[in-house]
Amino acid sequence: MYKVLRKKRTGNIIEEVKGETVGLVKTNIIQILPEGLELESGEVLPGPIDVAYETYGTLNEDKSNVILVCHALSGSAHAAGYHRMIDEETFDGATEGWWEDIIGPGKGIDTNKFFVICSNFLGSCYGTTGPTSVNPKTGKRYGITFPTITISDMVKVQRELIRQLGIEKLLAVVGGSMGGMQALEWSIMYPEVVESAVVIAATASCSAQNIAFDAVGRNAIISDPNWENGEYLEKGKVPSKGLSIARMIGHITYLSSKSMDLKFGRKLINGKTYDIDNIEFEVESYLGYQGEKFVNRFDANSYLYITKAMDYFDLTEKYGNGDLKEVFRKTNIKFLFISFSTDWLFPPSESLEMVSAALAAGKDVSYINIESINGHDSFLIDTEIESKAIKAFLDATFQEKQNRKEKTYERRKDFEIIERIIEEGSRVLDLGCGDGELLVYLREKKKVRSVGIEIDTNEVIECLSKGLNVIHYDINKGFKDKNFLEIEDKAFDYVIVSKTIQQLKSPGLLLEEILRISKNAIVSFPNFGYYKLRLQLLLKGTMPVSSELPYSWFDTPNIHLFTYRDFVNLCKAKGIKIKQTFFISRVFNKEMCSKILPNLLAEEVITVLSYEDSSNK
Amino acid sequence: MYKVLRKKRTGNIIEEVKGETVGLVKTNIIQILPEGLELESGEVLPGPIDVAYETYGTLNEDKSNVILVCHALSGSAHAAGYHRMIDEETFDGATEGWWEDIIGPGKGIDTNKFFVICSNFLGSCYGTTGPTSVNPKTGKRYGITFPTITISDMVKVQRELIRQLGIEKLLAVVGGSMGGMQALEWSIMYPEVVESAVVIAATASCSAQNIAFDAVGRNAIISDPNWENGEYLEKGKVPSKGLSIARMIGHITYLSSKSMDLKFGRKLINGKTYDIDNIEFEVESYLGYQGEKFVNRFDANSYLYITKAMDYFDLTEKYGNGDLKEVFRKTNIKFLFISFSTDWLFPPSESLEMVSAALAAGKDVSYINIESINGHDSFLIDTEIESKAIKAFLDATFQEKQNRKEKTYERRKDFEIIERIIEEGSRVLDLGCGDGELLVYLREKKKVRSVGIEIDTNEVIECLSKGLNVIHYDINKGFKDKNFLEIEDKAFDYVIVSKTIQQLKSPGLLLEEILRISKNAIVSFPNFGYYKLRLQLLLKGTMPVSSELPYSWFDTPNIHLFTYRDFVNLCKAKGIKIKQTFFISRVFNKEMCSKILPNLLAEEVITVLSYEDSSNK
Repeated sequence: MYKVLRKKRTGNIIEEVKGETVGLVKTNIIQILPEGLELESGEVLPGPIDVAYETYGTLNEDKSNVILVCHALSGSAHAAGYHRMIDEETFDGATEGWWEDIIGPGKGIDTNKFFVICSNFLGSCYGTTGPTSVNPKTGKRYGITFPTITISDMVKVQRELIRQLGIEKLLAVVGGSMGGMQALEWSIMYPEVVESAVVIAATASCSAQNIAFDAVGRNAIISDPNWENGEYLEKGKVPSKGLSIARMIGHITYLSSKSMDLKFGRKLINGKTYDIDNIEFEVESYLGYQGEKFVNRFDANSYLYITKAMDYFDLTEKYGNGDLKEVFRKTNIKFLFISFSTDWLFPPSESLEMVSAALAAGKDVSYINIESINGHDSFLIDTEIESKAIKAFLDATFQEKQNRKEKTYERRKDFEIIERIIEEGSRVLDLGCGDGELLVYLREKKKVRSVGIEIDTNEVIECLSKGLNVIHYDINKGFKDKNFLEIEDKAFDYVIVSKTIQQLKSPGLLLEEILRISKNAIVSFPNFGYYKLRLQLLLKGTMPVSSELPYSWFDTPNIHLFTYRDFVNLCKAKGIKIKQTFFISRVFNKEMCSKILPNLLAEEVITVLSYEDSSNK
Repeated sequence: MYKVLRKKRTGNIIEEVKGETVGLVKTNIIQILPEGLELESGEVLPGPIDVAYETYGTLNEDKSNVILVCHALSGSAHAAGYHRMIDEETFDGATEGWWEDIIGPGKGIDTNKFFVICSNFLGSCYGTTGPTSVNPKTGKRYGITFPTITISDMVKVQRELIRQLGIEKLLAVVGGSMGGMQALEWSIMYPEVVESAVVIAATASCSAQNIAFDAVGRNAIISDPNWENGEYLEKGKVPSKGLSIARMIGHITYLSSKSMDLKFGRKLINGKTYDIDNIEFEVESYLGYQGEKFVNRFDANSYLYITKAMDYFDLTEKYGNGDLKEVFRKTNIKFLFISFSTDWLFPPSESLEMVSAALAAGKDVSYINIESINGHDSFLIDTEIESKAIKAFLDATFQEKQNRKEKTYERRKDFEIIERIIEEGSRVLDLGCGDGELLVYLREKKKVRSVGIEIDTNEVIECLSKGLNVIHYDINKGFKDKNFLEIEDKAFDYVIVSKTIQQLKSPGLLLEEILRISKNAIVSFPNFGYYKLRLQLLLKGTMPVSSELPYSWFDTPNIHLFTYRDFVNLCKAKGIKIKQTFFISRVFNKEMCSKILPNLLAEEVITVLSYEDSSNK
C-alpha cells in the first residue's frame, strides 16, 4: 500500500491531499472473442478483440468481492493509482487514475475489501479495439469502416472479459455518466451475473439536448477537411480543428455556469485587444487548451462512434417498449442512483425518473442527490459525499451476502405498536425515515420489503449503511409530478408517516397521496388537543411548548398543528376510514386515553387509515 | 389597420391566430454621421453610416410617445407588420416582423398610442453599416478590416438616428436578449433622453458560459477554410460549415432541454441506420436546417463582430468599477426587468442581480419572472404575460407624464393607521403588496417613494398598471442571498408586513431581515390569543377558525400561528423595540383593547418596530 501527497482541485481551490492509494499499476491487454462479436446492429466485428483493463485489490477465495467500474466518454482503463511514481516536488499526477478519489484502500470503493476491475470500452482508443485498430481481415486500420456500436456492445465485451478472468459474479457494476449507462445495460442484460449497480450522473435515455450537442460536435469533426472522409490516419492528417471544437462544446456541458464563473469569470488574458480573431478571455483560452490537449490524446473517429453509441442509448425504447417500468421488471438487482444538483447534462430529474420506474417495478432502489457546484463533472470532483454513499451501499451489499448480523435495535413504544399492525412480508414505505431504525426493526421482526424517504443527506447515508432502500427526497414535492418522484397507485401495503404530517406544506393533500400510493397508512402525530397544551394557550396566552412540540412558534418545523378531533374530522370529510387508533400518554394510562376524552388526554396518537371504499384497496 | 390570420408556434403547437397588425411596412435607410463615429475602441469608423429602420404608429404632437425597440443578435429593423401581404391560403408569414406578437394596435407595445422605432444595429448585415458594407475610404468591403464594435457603439448610432428623426425624448427603450443590453446602455449613456427601459431576458454582463459558447462559435467560423482570413466575399466563398456550426450551438442555447424534448424528443427520421456519418435524429436534422437557413441569411463576419460585442458587454466593469450599484446610480430612469423561468442563457438570477442593484441605487425598478418552457426564446414565443406586463408598464409610464388622475382608493381602517405612522416622503417597502392599493393610498397621502414585493403574477401586473414599482418575488427566499434578491442594510424607512408574517417559513428570521433592511417595520398580524380562538380550542378541542383566520388547519397558508404575547416575547428576545401598538377588535372598542387584556381582546394587532439600539438606525 502506497501513500501519496497530491494536488486536488475542488471547485476553484487546489488543495494538497495526502491519501492512501493502490500505488503503481499497469494496464493489461487481453485478447478475447476470437470468433468475433455479433453487434446490436447485426454486423459482426471480426475477432479477436483486444481489451485493455486494470485491476486493484485482491480477489477473495469465493470470488464474491468483484466490482466492475465503467468509465465515461473519454476515459480509459486507468481508474486508480499511478502509472509512474508521483513526483513529490511538482505534485505531477498526470498519470493518476481518473477516479483516484473513489477507488483505493479505505475509500468509497475499498480495495482492502474489493477486487476492482476497470476496462477500456469497445470503440475507444486506449487499448481496446476501436476505429484506430487494425482490421484483422484487411490488415488496415478500421477508420470509419469500423461498425457502429452501442452501449450494449461495449457491455458484451466486458461480460466476456469477466468470464476470461474466471469470474462468475459481480458484487456491483459502478459507473458515472456513460459509465452509468453501461451499469444500467449490465443490470438488464446480465441480472444473473450482477448483484447491484451504482448508476451515477446518468440517464435512461439521452435527451434531445444531449443528442443536439453531440451532433454539433460530430458535425464539426466531419466538416474539418482534414477528416478526409475518416481516412485521416492513412493520409497522415488529423482533423484537429473539428475534434477540438467538439471537445470544447462537450467541455462546456460538463461544467456548470456557476463553476465557470468561479473559475474564469470575465477575466482577460491581456486586456481588451479589440482584435476580432483573437482569443482574449481566459475561458476562451482554457477551452482552446482543453481542445488541443484532447486532440493529442484522443481519436476523432472514436469520438464519432462513442457519441453515437451514447445518442442511441435508450433503455426505455430498447427494453421497455416505451415504458421504463418494464425495463426494470427485467432485472432483480439492487440499485443506487446518484445525481448532482448542478448537473444539467444528466440532471437529477432524470435519475429520479429511473428511481420512480424501479420503485414501480418493485425493485430494491436507493437514491441520493448531492449538492455541488461543478455540474456534470461533479462525479469526478465533488467526491466526499459520493464516496460515503458508494461505500455505505457497497459495504452493506457485501455484508448482506456474508450473512448480516443484525445490530440490536431500539425498543420503542411506537415501534412495538407498528409491529403489531403490519403483516409479515408487507411492502412498506416510511416517509421521513430518519436513520432507518424503524425499518431495520420491521425487517427483522416482520420481514417487510421496505423503502424509506428522507431529506437529510447524512441520514440517507446511515440508511444505506444499514442495507436499507432509501430515497433522498423532499416529501413536500409529492409523488405525482413527472419531474419529481412518481409513485404508482397502491404500490405499498403500508405507508408510515411518523410525527411528520404536521411539518408538511399540505397535510390534507399528503393524506390523500399516501392513501393513493398505499392500501393502508399508519399516521402518528402529536395531539394539539392535549389538555396541557390547551391550558397553556388559555391561561398563559402563548403558543404551547411541550416535549412532543418542543419548538418556539417562530422557528418550529411543525407548521400545521391540529388536535386529534381535527384529524378525525378531516378523515371523515375525505372519506378516510380510521381502522385503529392508539393513544400514548405519559401521564394517563393507555386504557383511560382510549376510553374517555382521548382528545384531552393523549399526547401522541397513532392511527391506521384506509379508504372506506374497499374498491380502492 | 390590417387584420391578418396567421400561424403561431407556441411550444409544440401551431395555432392559427387572428390579430390586428400594423400591416404592410417597409424598411427605410438613412445616412448619418458623415464625419464618422469614434468607437469605444478608440478607432474611427468612417462616415457616412447607413442605418436601416422601421417605424410603426403615429408620432404625437409633443413627440412624447416614442418607443425605441432594440433587436437581438440575428434580428433586423423589421420588428412588426409584413413586408408583403400574408397569404391566407398558405399562411406564409416569412416576412413577418420578429416581434409581431408584441408590437401592434392594442398589443403590448400599442401602436394606437405609441410611435415605435426599430433600427438594425451597427455591425449587422440587414442594411446598417457592417462588415459586408463598402469602406468609403477604400471602395472595398470591410470584411475583417471592420473595426471591433461594442454595444455602446451600436447605441451611439441609434442616438444619432433619433436625433435625425427630430426626436428629443424616448418614452421607453425596449429590448430582449442583446436588445436588452442596448436598452441598458441607453439608460446609462443617455438618461436625459430616456424615460424608462424594459430590459427582457438580458444580463448586466455576459457570463463565462456565454463567452464560452460564443467563442466556440467564432472558432468554428475561423476554422472553416472558406473563411479565407475574413475575405471570403472577395474570393466568392462562404464559410458555410463554420457559420452553420456556430448557429447550431447558439440555437441549442436559445431553447430549453424540456422544449427540445417536447419538440423532437428522440424521434428518428428514418429509423436507425447505424451509419456513423449520417444525420438520423430529428433534432439533428432540425439544427442542420437552422444552420443552413442561417448561412443563407446572415454574414459570417457580422456574426464574429456581434458576438464579440456581446462578450465585451459588462456594465459593472465599464460604468461601476466592479460595482453594479454604481452603474445604476448613473441613471434616473424607470426600469422594468423581465425574465423567463427556463432561460438558462440569461437566467432569472441575472435579472434579479440588476433589480437588486437598481434598488440599492434607490431607482424606480420593477421585475416580473414569467413561467415558460421555451428557454431564452420565450421572449419571442411565450408573449401573453410578457405583453400584459409591458403594456401595463408603458401605459402607466405614459399616463404619468400626462398627469395621472388617481383613482379613488379604498378606505380601510388599517390603511388609516399606517398613514398616521409613516412620515411624508418616506421610502417604503410593502412585503406581499397584493394589488398595490395600500401603496397607491400612501403615494397620494404621504408622497412616499415605494416598492412592493408580490408573488402573484396577476397582482404584479395590476401594480404595474398603477405605475407602482413592484418586484415579483417569493419573500421566503429572503433578501441576503446573492442568487436571489439582495437588499442592502437600511435601504428603507419603513417595511410594511401586513398579515403576512404568519404565512412565512421563518417568521423569526424575517423579522430580523426587515429590521436589517429598514429603519422601522410596521407588522400587522391576527392574534391567536384572541379569547374566542382560545375558547374554541379549549372547549371544542379543534383548531379555531375565524374571520381573521378563515382556513382549515390542513390547507391554511397561516403556518406559524402566534398570540400577541408570543410576539412581544419574541421582540424582547431579539432586542426589538415595539414603538407603537394598535389593537383592532370588532367586538371590543379600541380603547378597551389597548388598556386591558389586549392579548385576549384584540383580533388583529398592528405594531411599529425598530431596534432598541439607535446605532442600528
